[in-house]
Amino acid sequence: MTPSVTVLGQGAMGRALAAALLAAGHRAAVWNRTPGRPVPAGTLELPLSEALTSDLVIVCLFDHASIHETLDPHAGKLAGRAVVNLTSTEPASARELAGWAAGHGIEYLDGGIMATPEMIGGPGSSLLYSGSAAVFERYRPVLEVFGAAEYFGADAGHASLVDFALLAGMYTMFAGFYHGAAMVRAAGIPAAEFAPRAAAWISAVTGSLPEIGAKIDSGDYAEPFQPLTFTKAALDAIVGASREAGVDLDIIGAVRNLADRQIAAGFGGHSSERMFESLNPPAAR
Amino acid sequence: MTPSVTVLGQGAMGRALAAALLAAGHRAAVWNRTPGRPVPAGTLELPLSEALTSDLVIVCLFDHASIHETLDPHAGKLAGRAVVNLTSTEPASARELAGWAAGHGIEYLDGGIMATPEMIGGPGSSLLYSGSAAVFERYRPVLEVFGAAEYFGADAGHASLVDFALLAGMYTMFAGFYHGAAMVRAAGIPAAEFAPRAAAWISAVTGSLPEIGAKIDSGDYAEPFQPLTFTKAALDAIVGASREAGVDLDIIGAVRNLADRQIAAGFGGHSSERMFESLNPPAAR
Repeated sequence: MTPSVTVLGQGAMGRALAAALLAAGHRAAVWNRTPGRPVPAGTLELPLSEALTSDLVIVCLFDHASIHETLDPHAGKLAGRAVVNLTSTEPASARELAGWAAGHGIEYLDGGIMATPEMIGGPGSSLLYSGSAAVFERYRPVLEVFGAAEYFGADAGHASLVDFALLAGMYTMFAGFYHGAAMVRAAGIPAAEFAPRAAAWISAVTGSLPEIGAKIDSGDYAEPFQPLTFTKAALDAIVGASREAGVDLDIIGAVRNLADRQIAAGFGGHSSERMFESLNPPAAR
Repeated sequence: MTPSVTVLGQGAMGRALAAALLAAGHRAAVWNRTPGRPVPAGTLELPLSEALTSDLVIVCLFDHASIHETLDPHAGKLAGRAVVNLTSTEPASARELAGWAAGHGIEYLDGGIMATPEMIGGPGSSLLYSGSAAVFERYRPVLEVFGAAEYFGADAGHASLVDFALLAGMYTMFAGFYHGAAMVRAAGIPAAEFAPRAAAWISAVTGSLPEIGAKIDSGDYAEPFQPLTFTKAALDAIVGASREAGVDLDIIGAVRNLADRQIAAGFGGHSSERMFESLNPPAAR
């Protein structure tokens, strides 16, 4: 039998999740904190106490606090049910929620969504999960409606950590695009004209990330792909051109500092991937 | 008749340029500041005074200062010849070199290389040029040996500005990857395991840059794709997870500041692309 599914939260992402469930032939109930806002046609909007009686309760709320505000008064009703939390929550908060759920006899799986709402249910959508393996296996066909589903183990905080690491990469890449777009505006080039060129270039150079990753893992930067002094000279020139163009140096200056610190420590001849070490990453386990 | 071409500078990039010329059937002379270092087989290593007698002199040296050190004593010999400068130089320096060249009757074209040395001559390689249109047209078949060739107009600094804007995007994206890799290391995930996932994700989200660029050009952020308050909450959570993982906050903190400043200015409900305005970009022309 098709399990009954509820989606709590009907922001842009919650609506996309509910719509994908319907499109795949599932019965989907929804609840939103603010009643009367539009929900996908075909879903059943229920009061919270009824919405929580589904086999599977998918949570897509604003933040960690709003999850507790919503679920705490109804913890007894959730006992024996499965909760999949797709709200963006820090690893420590995901672990806290897993502990809270265990204390109430609720099965808990945490997930991170690597997709925009428009991408949900499409080929580029990917979701990362950790926590209850039983929930992941039992509801895998439902979860795969949203996108590729990958399980990262019993630590409920693990999927969130990987999710946040990827989002850190995305937001930083966007900041780099903003910086470049600000530079070319000084020459009268619109951001929309710069964007396809930037997308193609940045996409192309992501091809070197595996090689960079292997260098980082080796911990041996003595054989340079590109020496730090060369990268530093390039970043100095970019900083100079940015200043000339009237663009704020906060982003590119922070990037240059990663190189500066390693050069100051005597590693100018080492490979530029040593910039990673400036972030004081914890030792590899 | 095939023009004779010289490449000044035999670092990794200069060697790649010379090798590509040879592979395409051109006669290529080379000169390197440090004699006796390996040069591509088939090239003719010449003393500087002889190397400068080619029709086309391609310059790929360390920086702006080294170009003057190398060419100034021989400016008279270069009169009537074409110089294409592919050394990474700031827009202001490119304009200075164009002026210097004009003063000595030298035709000057400035270029930016959007490729690593390994990519030169391959399908992904792209070079941006500005300065002398005559040089660009006359030597276009030679320049296209290195990769796709695009001309940006008579301002010798223009290609360099676009080049640096794209490089700013690349180095910042790398910094975002370093940050993400440092976060997942805390959970024992090697950078090489994180890298293909990050490459696929970052590459996928570059697909939204054109839409972001159009929003920036409109200057109207009132209709949010994703409100700044939402992006700020996500960045706060990423900062929290980074701190928890023991990762330095310099990069992600600088990104978050772009959002913070716009929210402080009262634009929390506006679209997140308003982060661009925190870089104080010059007004659109």
